[in-house]
Amino acid sequence: MYIGIDVGGTNITGGLFSVEHEILKRAKMKSRAKDGTAAIMEQLFKVISELKGQSSEEILGIGIGIAGIIDSKAGIVRSSANIDVVNFPLKEVVEAEFHIPTYIENDVNVGVIGEWKYGGAKGYSNIVGIFVGTGIGGGLVLEGKLYTGKIGAAGEIGHIPIDMNGPYCGCGSKGCIEAYASKTGMEQYINALIKHQHKSSFLTRVEENNGRLKSGYLVEAIRVKDTYAIEVLDYAMEKLGVGIAGVINLLNPDLVVLGGGVMEALGDYLLPKIQASCEKYSMPELYKSTQFKMATLGDDSGIYGAMNIASQR
Amino acid sequence: MYIGIDVGGTNITGGLFSVEHEILKRAKMKSRAKDGTAAIMEQLFKVISELKGQSSEEILGIGIGIAGIIDSKAGIVRSSANIDVVNFPLKEVVEAEFHIPTYIENDVNVGVIGEWKYGGAKGYSNIVGIFVGTGIGGGLVLEGKLYTGKIGAAGEIGHIPIDMNGPYCGCGSKGCIEAYASKTGMEQYINALIKHQHKSSFLTRVEENNGRLKSGYLVEAIRVKDTYAIEVLDYAMEKLGVGIAGVINLLNPDLVVLGGGVMEALGDYLLPKIQASCEKYSMPELYKSTQFKMATLGDDSGIYGAMNIASQR
Repeated sequence: MYIGIDVGGTNITGGLFSVEHEILKRAKMKSRAKDGTAAIMEQLFKVISELKGQSSEEILGIGIGIAGIIDSKAGIVRSSANIDVVNFPLKEVVEAEFHIPTYIENDVNVGVIGEWKYGGAKGYSNIVGIFVGTGIGGGLVLEGKLYTGKIGAAGEIGHIPIDMNGPYCGCGSKGCIEAYASKTGMEQYINALIKHQHKSSFLTRVEENNGRLKSGYLVEAIRVKDTYAIEVLDYAMEKLGVGIAGVINLLNPDLVVLGGGVMEALGDYLLPKIQASCEKYSMPELYKSTQFKMATLGDDSGIYGAMNIASQR
Repeated sequence: MYIGIDVGGTNITGGLFSVEHEILKRAKMKSRAKDGTAAIMEQLFKVISELKGQSSEEILGIGIGIAGIIDSKAGIVRSSANIDVVNFPLKEVVEAEFHIPTYIENDVNVGVIGEWKYGGAKGYSNIVGIFVGTGIGGGLVLEGKLYTGKIGAAGEIGHIPIDMNGPYCGCGSKGCIEAYASKTGMEQYINALIKHQHKSSFLTRVEENNGRLKSGYLVEAIRVKDTYAIEVLDYAMEKLGVGIAGVINLLNPDLVVLGGGVMEALGDYLLPKIQASCEKYSMPELYKSTQFKMATLGDDSGIYGAMNIASQR
């Protein structure tokens, strides 16, 4: 059996999987990332212990996805927003506790592996995975292998600049697609509308939530054809499409697979908008050779992908 | 022995190489691309015959680099500005004539292979090759292998959009880095300066050459510190740097290697400008892990790379 774990900033989720890669049990706990590395490790160990306790057979491997720059070969978390220790030897720490071979990888990369092996991207060789939520994460499968680059940091699709005079991004740069098309990016637009006294039920909901956008608000607003929600999403998806166009021209992928909270909530509505912009800004023969699909595993992509890296080593 | 050929729009150049990959003889003819596919094939055959005639030993393979979308596995030129036949079976046509195993690849890709195996990019595994000339071409070596994507068209770095409201590009899209930083892109800027009655020896030279820029003009203008030439290059290199920043964030490469006529002419002057812009628009850890180098083979990168693909199969 295998254990796959997704260490997020809010929750740690895990799954116990059969050797046939079927999910058998689940576990979930608060990650307590704000309480420091010792706290998050304690929570991680609890999730692993719970799953291990439910296993009738030997656990052959543990896979862990975690945000940050990960040296997966060495099993080291080089840097992470959720772990306040630089070059933290996560693989070694988990193996010392459980005596089970453990493999680690960036959380978005394991999400892409999940979709590639078990989800919407199954059967493709050159895959660009894009997850649109609070931020925009990405991962690449090239020639049938996860591609992670020199220090394991490849796939930062959210930080492709599409306008050097664009809005500041959380990364410190300007005009990244994350600054336009993530929930955080869209909030900038929405809050500017609110400040300029525009009114709609959608804007009111965001205002009443202290200016924070939720995917559910978008779903409801699109259902009732809220003019401002349509405007915000049109703008965001056009920008996202420009960024993806550059990726298509660079990588000539088989497939662009889109997931994350925003896409899960409104994929059918958003995908045609993204594709229309992509078509406009990419080279015709390259656009035509690229398929677009929705991710299918939702929040499970991480635990499935993490299980997969444990099962492959 | 091997033969390596670079089929360009103006000239076809070729080299005869020893089995130790040393160049022994060279040949060069006009490509006569404008006279149609039969004419360019005739010229190609002449170059190959000339080199073959000078060989004292058996030719083990012929490698050919040619512009366009190339299906290198099938040996077919899917589409090319220099060959007016769609899906032209170039490998088969050359093999039927010479009875020597022949391998074909996109011209920019063979240039990157040349720099990777024998030039400025030697020893690196994840390489972004960028050639700045009349246009901007690119090629990718990822995990120690040429990466060509689904239909063999990957590496179109020149057509990464960095401003959806930017100038029109030859590809039909807008705001591609080629529209700013290639000689063609810079000509737009220069001719706007000329039309607005700005005066300098540099602008006069371009004007007297019917508005066409040559790399040599830039070299001379920078030597005498021509204000307008400095302005044009500052603008172009900043834009190029934004595009490369996106590639760095996406691919986390070991090396960016820069070649082409403009870089050959002024690399020492331009490279710091490109890097400064890249640093501003890419993620700090990714920028820091990326090296920048100049290509070293000049026009020979193509014939060396073409020879290499023939020698590897």
